[in-house]
Amino acid sequence: MDVNQQALKIHKKFKGKITTALRDVPTVETLKLYYTPGVGGVASYVAEHPNSLRDYTWTNNLVAVVSDGTAVLGLGNIGPEGALPVMEGKAMLFKHFANIDAVPIVLNVHSTEEIISTIKAIAPSFGGINLEDIAAPQCFEIEERLKKELSIPVMHDDQHGTAIVVLAGLINAAIVTKRNLQDCKIVLIGAGAAGTAIAKLIHKFAGSQIVSVDSKGVICSQRNDLTPEKRLLASFSPNVKPGSLQDALKNADVVIGVSRGKLTGSDVKLMAKDPIIFALANPMPEIMPDEALAAGAAIVATGRSDFPNQINNALVFPGVFRGALDHNVKSITEDHKIAAAKVIASLVKNPTATCIIPSVFEKNLVPRIAAVIQ
Amino acid sequence: MDVNQQALKIHKKFKGKITTALRDVPTVETLKLYYTPGVGGVASYVAEHPNSLRDYTWTNNLVAVVSDGTAVLGLGNIGPEGALPVMEGKAMLFKHFANIDAVPIVLNVHSTEEIISTIKAIAPSFGGINLEDIAAPQCFEIEERLKKELSIPVMHDDQHGTAIVVLAGLINAAIVTKRNLQDCKIVLIGAGAAGTAIAKLIHKFAGSQIVSVDSKGVICSQRNDLTPEKRLLASFSPNVKPGSLQDALKNADVVIGVSRGKLTGSDVKLMAKDPIIFALANPMPEIMPDEALAAGAAIVATGRSDFPNQINNALVFPGVFRGALDHNVKSITEDHKIAAAKVIASLVKNPTATCIIPSVFEKNLVPRIAAVIQ
Repeated sequence: MDVNQQALKIHKKFKGKITTALRDVPTVETLKLYYTPGVGGVASYVAEHPNSLRDYTWTNNLVAVVSDGTAVLGLGNIGPEGALPVMEGKAMLFKHFANIDAVPIVLNVHSTEEIISTIKAIAPSFGGINLEDIAAPQCFEIEERLKKELSIPVMHDDQHGTAIVVLAGLINAAIVTKRNLQDCKIVLIGAGAAGTAIAKLIHKFAGSQIVSVDSKGVICSQRNDLTPEKRLLASFSPNVKPGSLQDALKNADVVIGVSRGKLTGSDVKLMAKDPIIFALANPMPEIMPDEALAAGAAIVATGRSDFPNQINNALVFPGVFRGALDHNVKSITEDHKIAAAKVIASLVKNPTATCIIPSVFEKNLVPRIAAVIQ
Repeated sequence: MDVNQQALKIHKKFKGKITTALRDVPTVETLKLYYTPGVGGVASYVAEHPNSLRDYTWTNNLVAVVSDGTAVLGLGNIGPEGALPVMEGKAMLFKHFANIDAVPIVLNVHSTEEIISTIKAIAPSFGGINLEDIAAPQCFEIEERLKKELSIPVMHDDQHGTAIVVLAGLINAAIVTKRNLQDCKIVLIGAGAAGTAIAKLIHKFAGSQIVSVDSKGVICSQRNDLTPEKRLLASFSPNVKPGSLQDALKNADVVIGVSRGKLTGSDVKLMAKDPIIFALANPMPEIMPDEALAAGAAIVATGRSDFPNQINNALVFPGVFRGALDHNVKSITEDHKIAAAKVIASLVKNPTATCIIPSVFEKNLVPRIAAVIQ
């Protein structure tokens, strides 16, 4: 039985992955406090003091995991029903790793304005919003607008969870290969949600030269087909000229793949000595680790759990939201993200070529990240 | 410490009333099935077979308790934040009485169209929608449209939960006072959400003459200020003339109050011998039971737990949604509601003037109601 068949079987057996439970089992007496007539007093008080909502309701520990199903895993636009098992899985991870109550919300609307207005309409029900698997470029405006217009933390995990864990891995990869990140030439393959956020965060952290490549080649100011986000990416390598991925890779220290593109051993050989390869496409990396290593790579990271150096968002989002909820943080900033990346990197005491990133089962992970989100 | 203070204290102590839990605690191995890569197979399968959603996700046991906060308890329009503790309380009752996972969703939009479009947008996330504390007359169109446009059960509990339990009580009150409901003259005070649904359900069940009264007096076809719902109410007593509540009460067998109106002992004395009084305003009934009894009432029911014959929605909604979820019922019909009322009435073996309705703690309540919702 392959992994998909096994997954269908276990999902059907337990009829889903999450459930609700009661914080206190009510008695005849306490039901009068938890529901009418007593709850009327709580309702009146909260209506007059909206900031007290988190003291009296489960919102203090509650995140919505919201997707419109347009960019689910590597499956693409499979719609809200298809997205629900994935969002429920994410809710499971929130609970398991950070004891956060998370509710999967899948949306049957897909325009930027409809997604924004729906999430704003339901926002008072939640303590935070984890956006998930919403296609680029819509995801950028949706997240930006919601961050501005809501007073609870909003984070698009495909962008920022990925960016944080990539930066964490890169910090340790630089240590192992004795590089300064600020002096590195970094090539990014794929300028979608994850790629854009990765480039922005590395640029903010180290000011490195970052050359981004999409399906049409190097992203540079000479091109006239660039979205606002791609224009920003072009500004991270202002002197770069139009060209191919291979042109970009010449003498690069690092390549980060978050696309369905392919890398060959010959491509790796174009890079600087002891290059760092993050081949993060899932489930098939842009290049398999053995091939990259044979071509001279010093360090290879992938998104997969069956190779060393798994770059996995699950390292990030439980701790980030744990911190945001615990410290009543209204907005997750670039400084928060950099602090989280540094904490994750620091949890590997002695980084090596096959250990640049901690395990998701590392006990200190969630509390240590949470401590810097405040 | 009064009940409101006690309620604030216990809510703050437990930081809310509900939480999430896991159906199965994941291991390193099963995480690969519950999340990536295995969940990708479930996502693909569900996307291709949307009807299988309930087999593979928690929607098979999941209800959203949705309110825009415009008609919360007796508190009126207190907004979504104020409504949230009440909706979370309702979610607690769903879990406690029927083991249903319920998620409170409060809405920061208030127009009919915005409420409908928001609920439709999030509907694929849930197995049923319990509408709650939405003001009349908007609630009528919202429920009707959602019932038509969604393929999961939608019920506005203020309307139908109340109507079902009132009909259940009335069936037993008629037995105790040796009446046939179809021959009764029934006066309804209050033509809002609950009143309208009560009148419709009694009319459907027994065809009784029902005279409805609002703040402007008897609702009759001569009035030119009637909403569509009030025109329907007028049709339930086609020969009635304009007049006051007192005019309506003359020789009435039953009065049902679901308003903030007042009833006096003199009003009760206008009624037929051994009248039945359902004074359901909360927390202050239209007339206190002792005063009604002193004026000759045979049976008095209220919404309160500190008097006999509590007419309480909590008798109804857990069982109705338990049945709808278990039997994959797409729409809760008038026949379902009548069947539920008859089941509730039948759970009182020997009805008396002080026992026309079972306790919410009656063990057979939920399974017996659930059995007739299919």
